[in-house]
Amino acid sequence: MYAARRARLRERCEAAGSEAALVSGDANVRYLAGGAPTGAALLVGPAEDSLLCRGDPVAERSADRPAEGLRIVVLPAPDGDPAVAGAERAAAAGARSLAVEEHHLTVSRHRALRSVAPRLRLDDLGTAVEQQRVVKDNEEISALRIAAEIADQALGELLESILVGRTERHLALELERRLVDHGAAGPAFTTSVGTGPNSGLAGHVPTDRRVEEGDFLCVCLGADYRGYRSEVARTFVIGTTPADWQIELYDQVFAAQRAGREKLAPGTPYRDVDRAARVVLEAAGHGERLGPRIGHGVGLENDEDPRLTPSAMGKLDACVPVTVDPGVHLPGRGGVRIDDTLVVRPEADGGPELLTITTKELLAL
Amino acid sequence: MYAARRARLRERCEAAGSEAALVSGDANVRYLAGGAPTGAALLVGPAEDSLLCRGDPVAERSADRPAEGLRIVVLPAPDGDPAVAGAERAAAAGARSLAVEEHHLTVSRHRALRSVAPRLRLDDLGTAVEQQRVVKDNEEISALRIAAEIADQALGELLESILVGRTERHLALELERRLVDHGAAGPAFTTSVGTGPNSGLAGHVPTDRRVEEGDFLCVCLGADYRGYRSEVARTFVIGTTPADWQIELYDQVFAAQRAGREKLAPGTPYRDVDRAARVVLEAAGHGERLGPRIGHGVGLENDEDPRLTPSAMGKLDACVPVTVDPGVHLPGRGGVRIDDTLVVRPEADGGPELLTITTKELLAL
Repeated sequence: MYAARRARLRERCEAAGSEAALVSGDANVRYLAGGAPTGAALLVGPAEDSLLCRGDPVAERSADRPAEGLRIVVLPAPDGDPAVAGAERAAAAGARSLAVEEHHLTVSRHRALRSVAPRLRLDDLGTAVEQQRVVKDNEEISALRIAAEIADQALGELLESILVGRTERHLALELERRLVDHGAAGPAFTTSVGTGPNSGLAGHVPTDRRVEEGDFLCVCLGADYRGYRSEVARTFVIGTTPADWQIELYDQVFAAQRAGREKLAPGTPYRDVDRAARVVLEAAGHGERLGPRIGHGVGLENDEDPRLTPSAMGKLDACVPVTVDPGVHLPGRGGVRIDDTLVVRPEADGGPELLTITTKELLAL
Repeated sequence: MYAARRARLRERCEAAGSEAALVSGDANVRYLAGGAPTGAALLVGPAEDSLLCRGDPVAERSADRPAEGLRIVVLPAPDGDPAVAGAERAAAAGARSLAVEEHHLTVSRHRALRSVAPRLRLDDLGTAVEQQRVVKDNEEISALRIAAEIADQALGELLESILVGRTERHLALELERRLVDHGAAGPAFTTSVGTGPNSGLAGHVPTDRRVEEGDFLCVCLGADYRGYRSEVARTFVIGTTPADWQIELYDQVFAAQRAGREKLAPGTPYRDVDRAARVVLEAAGHGERLGPRIGHGVGLENDEDPRLTPSAMGKLDACVPVTVDPGVHLPGRGGVRIDDTLVVRPEADGGPELLTITTKELLAL
């Protein structure tokens, strides 16, 4: 499987006129090599493919072991740069051109590559590997499915516990502990818990604010299962029946999120998904409170292509997992976020597959 | 204080012939601007200093608010690049040269800077800000002192609990929860817990292995307090009295760590600290099992300058916080790590100040 992915990349490079590719983005290396330690670099071609790393990856836990059929090169100098070693290796193998990831390599590292291999022409690989990662295979999708189940379980257990009086920080840590309890390698990203005036803020960093009666409680979490990262967000009301403004705002965000989900189909332009959700909230007068986008791809990274934004170019394909996560925050009052991870499927297969199944009713806890 | 730091950087730039500086490394921006959202960029000069960010930093929690006396520029396009906006702004302000952090900027971003400001000469700021951060002021050191106390408290509580049968993952999460209980913003880095054969591995990622009688238990953690990150590692034996090989290995690593600590004084070359610890373990036959370095600076980043390695150039100064963290891992058996955070002080002031006060006796838990 990994060899097939590298073969595709190799073809793409040859078509673009580069004899070899040097991959240095961590998620890209992992996608093409199987597990690899952080900071490793992968040289694809010109002859055999090699994984260059500082430490011995086989000593790492098995989940992180590189796939078979790769030459593992452990750098002699532990503080050496795997990308630089990769460029030396490509030059030594007789390559005249090497495509590198200019959006991952810093200017300083790129200069170091030039200096060790001055006769090697450095091309830009661009986001070739990120593009290859957009459509997932069945193994990737089942990892995401399990990750989503784990997050649903952790969230479900939290809802059964006492919430009033606990701080955002503690609820977030509790959720992360439960993710691990249920088999996650860890959280997919920093768990966000926002209460009262903090609810509805995208990426809110949990504070010491305690949950109070009548608060909106906004939770955004995800599990990392075998490197694949799900994402789910839900908003609840604490204690009594929700206030009218809370019900109204919740219904607006829910309608927007549903409109976005219903757009998920092969061939739909990314921007149409964003638009479908955005118009609902603009009509409700929240236009200027919306974030830059309504959703994004998930996989080996929590936030990867495609980006569902007003200006995004491109169309959805089948087997692309994305989030649909609109939210509105009213300064001083709080707000609502609703976020699912779904897989784009053709109508014939029943349409989008919902991976995050926690209810989206407005629950009063 | 922040203004004074920026003034020093401005002088250094002018001396190097650059009319303005664009800082894009997150920790560097935070050091010069006070709090700032991730991904912000700081333009120092040519006229007023500006913090460029995607979202409104004042909306963030107070700890992350930028200092007074800075112009805050929130990008109109939420997906814009603050560094690119900074270059535009420098050019608009009439600067002809701008020093940028080539070790933080990717090749793609650097190209984007050139294209928006083609007549602006881009110089390399290098690690000027990192160098400025090496010697800490009293406020920074007291933040580190509190961070170290928090980690000691979390560790002390863990030692009083039942350990046998619990997994590395759960012990790590428990420690991180306790860090937050005691006032940390969060862990300074991913808490490492290694048991039995996993003990003594640097940066070991916690697994589902459960603590057993007779294991070495290795814990490495740190607290993030107001952005400053302490680090401490201790090794314990579980249950009965330690085996002879465990006592012998522990004494060797302890002797090496003490030898390193005793070298900490203003004027000592970095490499001499590394050497002092390394020779002890080489004499014990562990030379080839040692990592690339024996310690490193701590501050706004867990791992910053100075690096205490065999090849490091430079000498220690007073008020530089560093770790001394040798470790040895015997494949299949496990190993020992002992790690303190200390502040370099002159002999007259009593020598190095130990911030991590948890005992370094070999405890059987």
